[in-house]
Amino acid sequence: MEKQEQLYEGKAKRIYRTSTPDQYWVEYKDDATAFNGEKRAQITGKGELNNRITAIFFTMLKERGIDNHFIRLLSATEQVVRKVEIIPLEVVVRNIAAGSLAKRLGMKEGTVLPQPVVEFYYKDDALGDPLVNASHIKVLGIASESDQATLERMGLAVNEVLRPYLRERNITLVDFKLEFGKTADGEILLADEISPDTCRFWDSETNEKLDKDRFRRDLGNVEEAYQEMLKRLGGDVHV
Amino acid sequence: MEKQEQLYEGKAKRIYRTSTPDQYWVEYKDDATAFNGEKRAQITGKGELNNRITAIFFTMLKERGIDNHFIRLLSATEQVVRKVEIIPLEVVVRNIAAGSLAKRLGMKEGTVLPQPVVEFYYKDDALGDPLVNASHIKVLGIASESDQATLERMGLAVNEVLRPYLRERNITLVDFKLEFGKTADGEILLADEISPDTCRFWDSETNEKLDKDRFRRDLGNVEEAYQEMLKRLGGDVHV
Repeated sequence: MEKQEQLYEGKAKRIYRTSTPDQYWVEYKDDATAFNGEKRAQITGKGELNNRITAIFFTMLKERGIDNHFIRLLSATEQVVRKVEIIPLEVVVRNIAAGSLAKRLGMKEGTVLPQPVVEFYYKDDALGDPLVNASHIKVLGIASESDQATLERMGLAVNEVLRPYLRERNITLVDFKLEFGKTADGEILLADEISPDTCRFWDSETNEKLDKDRFRRDLGNVEEAYQEMLKRLGGDVHV
Repeated sequence: MEKQEQLYEGKAKRIYRTSTPDQYWVEYKDDATAFNGEKRAQITGKGELNNRITAIFFTMLKERGIDNHFIRLLSATEQVVRKVEIIPLEVVVRNIAAGSLAKRLGMKEGTVLPQPVVEFYYKDDALGDPLVNASHIKVLGIASESDQATLERMGLAVNEVLRPYLRERNITLVDFKLEFGKTADGEILLADEISPDTCRFWDSETNEKLDKDRFRRDLGNVEEAYQEMLKRLGGDVHV
């Protein structure tokens, strides 16, 4: 497989076309951003850690019946994925109140939710990725009611797999953000990444944060937290 | 009927208990507030205008099968209503993009929506009345899924009645906010008010604003706009 022209550069990844028409080449970067790009830094090793962590999660999810775009690792910071067209919605699933949910509903961070909360955010940097409801999504024309239901069902299914998997590794899954894409056939696949950049992971005993909140909130030891996550996930992914 | 102790004072109304156990006495005030109370003023005559306009809308809606709390006018600024416990959700129905929807979705104000948008906001001043989705409402425990469906259905039904009614009066119904309450029997009734404080009304020919946006945006002639609305609605409501 050959890497061809760059299609897209996001905050944390670059996507390239390849010599295989239905496959993309993904390169994870060390760039860290928060608050819609207002806070920026480089975190040495983050690209590699997120590439490897995502590979572990996506491989495990595929084995448990949740189909996704991941095909295989290419290098420490690169992976090959199935080509999909990303649906411009961030699907957020929450088990514990934190971040914007705690603020929106006036809940203390750490409050265990009586049931998982699912939220959709419209992926639009200029608008600041606003929360949208079913009615907004219909009017925007970005997902049918049936696709919305699929996204919600798949989000909850990922939660049902990840929670116990992480609990066994002494990690509390507080919340996470997913993105989905459509294949040329119209099949909806889980896509993007699952990493400390896109999830809140708390040590189950100490509640120590092992995720991007260390960067957002200037808690220090960002790289060490991501390394700890890779370690707890087995950390033995090699190309 | 006797007015008894005050139960509640809101931004625009005072509610009193009465000698009739299942009826409340409502007094409309001239106070105007916007942006979650940050902007304040007195608008002479607003209390009377909103009291009369709400009476016209609620009487008409009841005649067309949409049950609500309104019983009768008591005076220029007062009305008697059925006692309900207000569900702490603002139900917003929109036909045309304006205000926070235009901002949230990046639409030009005045864009006709392909279908009505329904939104729920959690009534909580301290939180700034945040937008909430079905999942948030469930977790807050403030409305069951079935009650949510009822609120959405009633909101759309009010829209279906109000739009043509206003169109005949040369008014475009841009959007509006409803509140609902539960009777002691658990019946959901439309409550609160429907007035230029809670709707966006545009003159159908000139798009001149005949609502609270005149106050929010310092457009002047606020009282005159509310008077014009009462006039177009018949304006002949007398106690």
